[in-house]
Amino acid sequence: MSLMDRRDLEFWLYDWLRADALFASPRYSDHGREAMDGLLDLSAKLAEGIFLPTYKPSDRHEPKLHADGSVTVLPELRRAVLAYGEAGLVAASFDVVQGGTQVPHVFATASMAHFMAANIAASGYPMLSAANARVLAAHATPIQFRLFGVPQLAGVALGTMCLSEPQAGSALGDIVTRASFETTDDAGDRYRLFGNKMWISAGDHDITDDIVHLVLAKIPDADGRLVAGSKAISLFVVPKRIPAEISGDVVMNDVSVAGLNHKMGYRGTSNCLLNFGEGTARRPFGKAGAVGWIVGAPGQGLTIMFQMMNEARIGVGLGAAALAYRGYHLALDYARTRQQGRPLNHKAATSPVPLIAHPDVRRMLMAQKAYAEGALALCLYSARLVDEAAAHGSDEAGLLLGLLTPVAKTWSSEWGLAANDLAIQVHGGYGYTRDFDVEQLYRDNRLNPIHEGTTGIQAIDLLGRKILRGGGAGLMVLERRMLATAEATGKPLASFAETLRSALGDIKDAIRILADLNDEPRALANATPFLSAFGHLIVGWLWLDQALAAQSCLAAGPVDADFHNGKLWACRYFFDYEMPRIASWLAPVRGRSDLAVPDGAF
Amino acid sequence: MSLMDRRDLEFWLYDWLRADALFASPRYSDHGREAMDGLLDLSAKLAEGIFLPTYKPSDRHEPKLHADGSVTVLPELRRAVLAYGEAGLVAASFDVVQGGTQVPHVFATASMAHFMAANIAASGYPMLSAANARVLAAHATPIQFRLFGVPQLAGVALGTMCLSEPQAGSALGDIVTRASFETTDDAGDRYRLFGNKMWISAGDHDITDDIVHLVLAKIPDADGRLVAGSKAISLFVVPKRIPAEISGDVVMNDVSVAGLNHKMGYRGTSNCLLNFGEGTARRPFGKAGAVGWIVGAPGQGLTIMFQMMNEARIGVGLGAAALAYRGYHLALDYARTRQQGRPLNHKAATSPVPLIAHPDVRRMLMAQKAYAEGALALCLYSARLVDEAAAHGSDEAGLLLGLLTPVAKTWSSEWGLAANDLAIQVHGGYGYTRDFDVEQLYRDNRLNPIHEGTTGIQAIDLLGRKILRGGGAGLMVLERRMLATAEATGKPLASFAETLRSALGDIKDAIRILADLNDEPRALANATPFLSAFGHLIVGWLWLDQALAAQSCLAAGPVDADFHNGKLWACRYFFDYEMPRIASWLAPVRGRSDLAVPDGAF
Repeated sequence: MSLMDRRDLEFWLYDWLRADALFASPRYSDHGREAMDGLLDLSAKLAEGIFLPTYKPSDRHEPKLHADGSVTVLPELRRAVLAYGEAGLVAASFDVVQGGTQVPHVFATASMAHFMAANIAASGYPMLSAANARVLAAHATPIQFRLFGVPQLAGVALGTMCLSEPQAGSALGDIVTRASFETTDDAGDRYRLFGNKMWISAGDHDITDDIVHLVLAKIPDADGRLVAGSKAISLFVVPKRIPAEISGDVVMNDVSVAGLNHKMGYRGTSNCLLNFGEGTARRPFGKAGAVGWIVGAPGQGLTIMFQMMNEARIGVGLGAAALAYRGYHLALDYARTRQQGRPLNHKAATSPVPLIAHPDVRRMLMAQKAYAEGALALCLYSARLVDEAAAHGSDEAGLLLGLLTPVAKTWSSEWGLAANDLAIQVHGGYGYTRDFDVEQLYRDNRLNPIHEGTTGIQAIDLLGRKILRGGGAGLMVLERRMLATAEATGKPLASFAETLRSALGDIKDAIRILADLNDEPRALANATPFLSAFGHLIVGWLWLDQALAAQSCLAAGPVDADFHNGKLWACRYFFDYEMPRIASWLAPVRGRSDLAVPDGAF
Repeated sequence: MSLMDRRDLEFWLYDWLRADALFASPRYSDHGREAMDGLLDLSAKLAEGIFLPTYKPSDRHEPKLHADGSVTVLPELRRAVLAYGEAGLVAASFDVVQGGTQVPHVFATASMAHFMAANIAASGYPMLSAANARVLAAHATPIQFRLFGVPQLAGVALGTMCLSEPQAGSALGDIVTRASFETTDDAGDRYRLFGNKMWISAGDHDITDDIVHLVLAKIPDADGRLVAGSKAISLFVVPKRIPAEISGDVVMNDVSVAGLNHKMGYRGTSNCLLNFGEGTARRPFGKAGAVGWIVGAPGQGLTIMFQMMNEARIGVGLGAAALAYRGYHLALDYARTRQQGRPLNHKAATSPVPLIAHPDVRRMLMAQKAYAEGALALCLYSARLVDEAAAHGSDEAGLLLGLLTPVAKTWSSEWGLAANDLAIQVHGGYGYTRDFDVEQLYRDNRLNPIHEGTTGIQAIDLLGRKILRGGGAGLMVLERRMLATAEATGKPLASFAETLRSALGDIKDAIRILADLNDEPRALANATPFLSAFGHLIVGWLWLDQALAAQSCLAAGPVDADFHNGKLWACRYFFDYEMPRIASWLAPVRGRSDLAVPDGAF
């Protein structure tokens, strides 16, 4: 079994998203289908050959914190992450001038899906690094990028994002890590940082000697006080080791690991509590404090970081989708081979039938297909919008991407987890044991609705910032595209187009009701059920759109009819079983239900 | 924090279920409220003092299989299970003539909930033992009961149920364990058993020296062949050690542990692959085969076992509900103490507010309350039906219990897990770490939709056996009781009564459509969505019924108004946010959607 069925990828990339059109734009004219096939081949080979064998072992043998403060990971995991970098894959989607190969984002995303399906915890390292380097590429000085970005593109350094603190998880305005100006050197304005950062994925390890932290901190005011709120936050690049170019010799910075978090899943990714400027023995250049250089202007930290977070959010969605996809294929394999029970319409049969013969198992498989492939389609569509914006400078693409980012993150996380739940259920008792990968997929995927902004926070972002305060421009783009799909839908699927139009109308109604409240806090009380409904609307649309593409393929023939009919069946499943949920989520939204319950009533 | 809020228990037992009325029946006239208070006090004390401290340790240190074939558990876990038996709690719900204390089932259930909330894996041992002993009490000979049942009531032996085999999980008709008649002795007809049993909870351990297995096996026909199907199955009691009364000296039986299963959760319960009659060295009485005595008549095995399974099913539901309840209270505690973020309507506030101030957190807490307390109410209501049948010989109660058993098992499992998912979400990243109990509750609860019949199998039992083939008598009882609740609903809740009536009508409609198909296999294709809808209807009804009880308490006053208003809020939540889901599950049922997908399309 291959990790990503190439038929799916080719269907999404070419038949549906017309990604080959990108090769006509000057930005991507160096690439073509052959080169992209090579990228996918390489990804499949590395992911299956090097990442996948580490899946179980890296769950069983978590990163260790040693007495000397160092963190080590499983040697196989180290080799896998290094192999990814050596193959040039971190650099793939970077511009040629930055040292990358300028692969369209949609292909880089398809490539990354292989690694996430193989070992989500291992792929966390390069995913974070690429996002980190992209922030540096956009906002750092050329010297900073050369010192801290280029080594990440080359795979000899790995990056992190240091946002949360023990007392400030989602509420970043409350961080108290402080950064005091020290001097200006070749790498820019140099500061000394003091504080504690929590939940730092890849915060320390022995995969690479160099680690590049991007750290949010506050510069104290003239009285030495930290200003409250997120506007006071600045961004700093803080290397684990200070490069020789700055210090004459490689100097260890004052960043130390105070502890490791032990999670339900994602166990291969080291997750650290990091101390900055608290090492008693370490005084880089003879002074207290971790050395860091400001990136961008003071006070711009959170704005800049949102770029990294947005990339990470789609990355989280992609990971959740890839876990769902792998679980689906494992469950499908199991259902085809495991013999159990008799058909409901032939109970007297002498021998058992494969699980896939049972209608309830088919329902669970089709649900997984609809969730997993729906989520992957959503993430690839989002990536395609990045390319659309980059290749053609399309504002429309940017607006739609803003609307889809919280959906790609959340829908994939919530329904990817639901898919993995069903993958266990198809396996029965076996799926609940640690001998089967579906058990781990489920534990791994449970993180995704939490990190990079919980589902509740994405919901407020969508409904508050993007819709109620967003001026509606993104929604207009979405509506136009959705109606174009409905318009293009012919006879056999016409009822789905009708359902889509009607669900869109219900969502718009709900938005109107919420807008009419003129009371954003009240409107946001049901932001999460709204996001659930909105997400299903989006994915329903994308399934119908994919069904049209599958119809075209079938009409153009000759093709693998079963494969393309599978897309039509998944679309049908989604409209029969899933679209009716939209009304159930919108009921409390439209009814303006709230839970103004006295605290004592809980 | 106590494991079970006594206010909840008293509300359910007395204000709602009028369990004190049982004391007026001759069967329960030896008991009264004071004695039952004593039982609950004892349960709270033992569960908190002895079971709860083992929760994390028994997850971290799983049972071990040693080279000599013995299995050991964590010593603290051993002590906890023994203390439960020594306190007379296994015997509590048994008749006095059987050596029990004849406590009404509803109180025994309330007692058990404490232990399940404290450590579900530890409480698995006595729960299975009670169910095992109850089968013996009903179907074994007096000598068999004295030899194998009484020691379980006394807590010096523990019991198991040995049904599944590696090749026969849910499809018990396919078991191949064989039992050959040997002789008749004081304990009855003695057989020799040969076969392998899989997924045997409490299959071996060092908690008690004696273990009583109830084993399903087939007696070969005259030609030595095993007949296919479930009618050929008989039940045998197979002790780990053959009592001295039979053998003159205690003799080890030929039951050996071939391996332990390593699960995602429930890790404190040893879960074994057991071999019967395969030990080369062990030849009890000088002959090959595990020694077992038939219980009941040949061919009655599965019918008898269903009694144990029905008790175990409600037990699984209760466990799932107790895990949900504990998770809810942990999340509530955390939400009240953890400070994070600013209110949406006062973003400029200078200091953070507790999580419970955020509307989305309140929604997640109220959902957990509605699921956890709804599931506990459902399980206690079911237990009350057992007492109704026992005290008054009520057929009506028996019919309704048949209908509610698959719901109590499944609804509690599915929505109890959903509650634990939300408990993690309220904790944010912390809840995903193994430092917090909610992480483990979620892993533990994932088993419940699988064991003792998966959700899909419960759905076929409900829709096929109980509804389409059940003649509708149970449904009529349900409808009568449901409409009585709606009838009794006054002004402020009248719209809920309307919603209930309308949902009941929708369910009946769906049943009519399915019955009209005259094609049971086709009708059962959507049995699981039907069960989801039916379960929500039942729990909606029970919430409204509880709301009426809470209203009565408030009217009768003086009472803890916040507490009783909490019940009204949970009812409101259920009707605003949950009841709309019913229509979404019924959509494919009513639309007779099926997934007659070609295998290649998956």
